[in-house]
Amino acid sequence: MITIGTRNFGLELNGAASANTQFAVEQFKELKDAKCKGSEWTGWLRFADSIGPKLLKDIESYNSSMKSSFDVIVVIGIGGSYLGTRAISEALANEYLLAQPAAQRKFKPIIYVGHHLCSDATSDLMDFLDNVNPIVNVISKSGTTTEPSVAFRLVRDYMNRRYGEGEAAKRIIATTDPESGALRKLAVASGYQTFPVPRDVGGRYSVLTAVGMVPLAIAGYPVNEIMQSAQKYFASILQCDDAALGQHAVIQYASCRKAAVDHGKVTELLAYTEPKLRNFAEWWKQLFGESEGKNGKGMFPASLALTTDLHSLGQYAQDGMRTMMESFLSFKAPARHAAKMKVPVLNDDSDQLLYLEGKTIAAVNDAARLATSFAHSQGGMPCLSISVDEELNAKSLGALIAFYETSCAVSALMLGVNPFDQPGVEAYKKYLFGLMGRKGYEADGQKVTQG
Amino acid sequence: MITIGTRNFGLELNGAASANTQFAVEQFKELKDAKCKGSEWTGWLRFADSIGPKLLKDIESYNSSMKSSFDVIVVIGIGGSYLGTRAISEALANEYLLAQPAAQRKFKPIIYVGHHLCSDATSDLMDFLDNVNPIVNVISKSGTTTEPSVAFRLVRDYMNRRYGEGEAAKRIIATTDPESGALRKLAVASGYQTFPVPRDVGGRYSVLTAVGMVPLAIAGYPVNEIMQSAQKYFASILQCDDAALGQHAVIQYASCRKAAVDHGKVTELLAYTEPKLRNFAEWWKQLFGESEGKNGKGMFPASLALTTDLHSLGQYAQDGMRTMMESFLSFKAPARHAAKMKVPVLNDDSDQLLYLEGKTIAAVNDAARLATSFAHSQGGMPCLSISVDEELNAKSLGALIAFYETSCAVSALMLGVNPFDQPGVEAYKKYLFGLMGRKGYEADGQKVTQG
Repeated sequence: MITIGTRNFGLELNGAASANTQFAVEQFKELKDAKCKGSEWTGWLRFADSIGPKLLKDIESYNSSMKSSFDVIVVIGIGGSYLGTRAISEALANEYLLAQPAAQRKFKPIIYVGHHLCSDATSDLMDFLDNVNPIVNVISKSGTTTEPSVAFRLVRDYMNRRYGEGEAAKRIIATTDPESGALRKLAVASGYQTFPVPRDVGGRYSVLTAVGMVPLAIAGYPVNEIMQSAQKYFASILQCDDAALGQHAVIQYASCRKAAVDHGKVTELLAYTEPKLRNFAEWWKQLFGESEGKNGKGMFPASLALTTDLHSLGQYAQDGMRTMMESFLSFKAPARHAAKMKVPVLNDDSDQLLYLEGKTIAAVNDAARLATSFAHSQGGMPCLSISVDEELNAKSLGALIAFYETSCAVSALMLGVNPFDQPGVEAYKKYLFGLMGRKGYEADGQKVTQG
Repeated sequence: MITIGTRNFGLELNGAASANTQFAVEQFKELKDAKCKGSEWTGWLRFADSIGPKLLKDIESYNSSMKSSFDVIVVIGIGGSYLGTRAISEALANEYLLAQPAAQRKFKPIIYVGHHLCSDATSDLMDFLDNVNPIVNVISKSGTTTEPSVAFRLVRDYMNRRYGEGEAAKRIIATTDPESGALRKLAVASGYQTFPVPRDVGGRYSVLTAVGMVPLAIAGYPVNEIMQSAQKYFASILQCDDAALGQHAVIQYASCRKAAVDHGKVTELLAYTEPKLRNFAEWWKQLFGESEGKNGKGMFPASLALTTDLHSLGQYAQDGMRTMMESFLSFKAPARHAAKMKVPVLNDDSDQLLYLEGKTIAAVNDAARLATSFAHSQGGMPCLSISVDEELNAKSLGALIAFYETSCAVSALMLGVNPFDQPGVEAYKKYLFGLMGRKGYEADGQKVTQG
């Protein structure tokens, strides 16, 4: 269950602003009926019927046939090909997973590469591989995106040299277009296991497909729970009565965002209460930034870690330019630490902690979130709460992904843009081709060097 | 050497906009002569004469007297007490430092705690400590900040139980106020080694003092190089001729930022080319966010990792709301990887990499930066380049810190705010006290629960 609350939003969710809510409902219906802009990319909304069950079976059958032993999964991908996976893996894993002895690990570590062109970090990776026993999952719809293609050339060469081509082929999995493309061709020729990137799901909406679920399943994460919970959440809005749609969290979040834009807000600050959600925030930034940031529109997505960033960006949120809205994402406090993770009782107030002695750290964290949201709203910030009635776990993450994906599509449609394209991502590429001497792009390269 | 360039900035740095440059020069002189707002907090600008040499001697003498063996340094601090240290340690260390066998490590790992109230992450830390042999550096001017105080209670208790009070005391270092405060008192009573937080340097300006240099030195980072390089950079502007000041990068960056604000920009996007600068960007966000974000002023500081985020926030930067400026931070390509880190030659264009075969990854990365800056400027983004004529290393980081600290102070003074206070940071605290039942704050707590 996800519920939305507001403070200082200058509008009532179900009251005077109902025109806005009604508009959100209309856009949702266009989305649901595949009549919206970019409707050919809405497979993610129906994944439970099509992608889900088959994928789980395929993953299970792959896992049981795997014979090579391994202790690390190397994921090669950029943007939507790794951000969702990383969001989930880092939210659920131990902070020091890589440093844990293998026997203490709950999940196998996933190493993310191919999302940059840094020779320093790439060199560190190649050294790291020597100390582990890796399998590799390369993820690219086309197989021609520069960053993962460069990384895959290096890692493939490494695997072939280290294991020989036969064993290396057993250790490489390609997640790519189901029928065509460079990576599909190479995988078939080399005998790699493959999984499909569905043709009606774009990169930033792909975490619940093979793109995200395959590496997570191999690493031991409970992908069934994630997918079932997401499926349930999608159903909660797809099957919602017309009369109740206006009260659904998806519609409320989208209509609040539109209200913020109408009031001149240009940035949404996502304040989250668990440091392990850092990469979840990065996933959220891509989702909203790429879906809405076009034709001069969209709020810029930024994030703030609670309470960490109260000692960095907190001052700005309290008292800087009043051009933002803030959404506070919170979960139920984790029960498993309640007994141990308390402020120690010393009967001592010299560090001014006497009033907190014996209280759980989680309770202090939650009070800090409430206090911050109240203080920021007093400072003139429109604040919104997104409260998950569940601990941070596989189940709540699944629902939250479904919540954000659906809200984002509705929110983008309310701005009048296509939520599913990203034409601006291509703009720099011709200049890169030109600068690096690719034939046919000489004039573009010259523009940069002379411009 | 740091140089500034612009694209599509709507003003010439040394031409028509010279009034703006002149204003920046005036503000710098007020800063230099300690006549500006908050001048009692400008010790960082003169650290070379006062703090630097003595600190290096004290650290050296401490290091040579240390008898306990250790393999990990635990830094307990929040905001300015850890962000600068983390910026430097993660920029210079191997990406997989914690996973490296001890013999392969160039530096000892630094673990950062006490910057959140997350029971999950804190629990992971306590488990992690059992697998290593730690020393602890607790950093807090007052010793009463909630997050580090809670963490220090837990860690101190752990150290006392594990090592006994005598050995634990030898393994705990306190960096705190030179004379008074809760942590100073506790450190003296317990026999901890102490280092001073200078009284004329605020948290976000403190990385070049004992706050940042002590843990880095203990972990093996070349603090001499960092400090000497920073000192040289500070001198380059402190000793600059009046006539040449307008051409100094510090003045140029500050005056460009003011021009962006005057043109209605509300966000600065720092685009950096090395993934290892992620925490440097976090340090930069605190520096500018807390220094400028007050009285409804200041651009919101956000960041974009190149080329990673071209596949997430790139679309927004290219074509979203035109309310931002972007600064591209780059370094000289690293020579140590040039021979090995190349795009493998396969004479194959199926993955469309033929035109890059044999080229260094670093060269592709640099071309991508240039191409992106050109494309974004074509999209209507005012772009600025901050080019460091040196590889990313201790020396260039030292200079860069001095560059950003000085620019930030000048830039904030140009907005008419005090660069060195942070009154808004306190706003949420009374509500937290109230919610957690601290005496005297009952009414504040009620406001939140009823509001």
